[in-house]
Amino acid sequence: MLEAEGVLQVSSQELGDRFHLSPSQIRRDLANFGGFGVRGVGYDVASLADRLHRVLRLDALHRLIVVGMGNLGTALSSYLGFNDLSFEVVAGVDSDPDLIGQEIAGVLVEPFSELASVARRSQADIGVLTVPAEAAAGAFEALVGAGLRAVLNFAPVMLEERSGVRVKNVDLRIHLEELAAHLGGAEIGRPPPEVSSE
Amino acid sequence: MLEAEGVLQVSSQELGDRFHLSPSQIRRDLANFGGFGVRGVGYDVASLADRLHRVLRLDALHRLIVVGMGNLGTALSSYLGFNDLSFEVVAGVDSDPDLIGQEIAGVLVEPFSELASVARRSQADIGVLTVPAEAAAGAFEALVGAGLRAVLNFAPVMLEERSGVRVKNVDLRIHLEELAAHLGGAEIGRPPPEVSSE
Repeated sequence: MLEAEGVLQVSSQELGDRFHLSPSQIRRDLANFGGFGVRGVGYDVASLADRLHRVLRLDALHRLIVVGMGNLGTALSSYLGFNDLSFEVVAGVDSDPDLIGQEIAGVLVEPFSELASVARRSQADIGVLTVPAEAAAGAFEALVGAGLRAVLNFAPVMLEERSGVRVKNVDLRIHLEELAAHLGGAEIGRPPPEVSSE
Repeated sequence: MLEAEGVLQVSSQELGDRFHLSPSQIRRDLANFGGFGVRGVGYDVASLADRLHRVLRLDALHRLIVVGMGNLGTALSSYLGFNDLSFEVVAGVDSDPDLIGQEIAGVLVEPFSELASVARRSQADIGVLTVPAEAAAGAFEALVGAGLRAVLNFAPVMLEERSGVRVKNVDLRIHLEELAAHLGGAEIGRPPPEVSSE
């Protein structure tokens, strides 16, 4: 964003303001990856962006296979479908005969039963689960069996990581629960009522 | 889940195992809401579930208005459409003339321009933004203007909270970035190379 705005140098104070972090936290965090700030001057925006891209491995294109090309799978494919240099949906599978063979958001839907060969052919390295809860465990096994080492799970089921396979469980409902707690009042974080000593 | 499994009592150890937390952390956290465990026995599952529902205000039904009834809005409406006692999508708006008037996942799509009256009539208390990045700021203003006090934002734009309005920004891409960093190797978390003293 700073590059797009034409900003050439940025201080840890300005970065901290954007992320609601202290300048010293920004400096400490970035120092973990080597000292690329200059005292009193700050960070060179272009080289900071380049360096962070490489640290986060966003300089490589990651290839996603989406399991479940319903509305959520379609939404994700559309979202990543253009103008994304780091992530591309390269394949989609589903078990619904009405979807198989269709092209959705630029992705040809192939049969779930062929997941292993589809994953291999498309050289996918991240699996995305957008299946109903009851299908999640089986689909996860299929992805692991196909050699995927990273899985993003949107099904409302907590999948356990295993050796060599990183799993990110994203439960959309939990965000709603946080908002609900806020709407309900201030019971959370409030200490329990004290028993009067009188 | 424990109730469904017929479990009547649960210890902080068993709860901790499920959440990858220590038993003492479980006890401390739950003690914040009053002492409802019994030493050496654990927690009564039914009363713990009931109590947590009330603490999290999940005993009330929350009414969602979805702004942007594209694929993500549809996915969310379907996901919450059945068997959810805490959250219901009561209204959806969009600015696409092809969608307005359609019923999608049980939700009638109404014009974005009528958001304020739709929100009032449907008594929505949580707004969900599933619009493109460039539409997010305007849609957020419209929700706040319509009196919503809680907003779940899926647009890839960081919306700032303001007085009395709670905002949850959910950036799906950030989960992919975490997975990418894992795939790329171990640079993250590894200390910077030390300069040899020789």
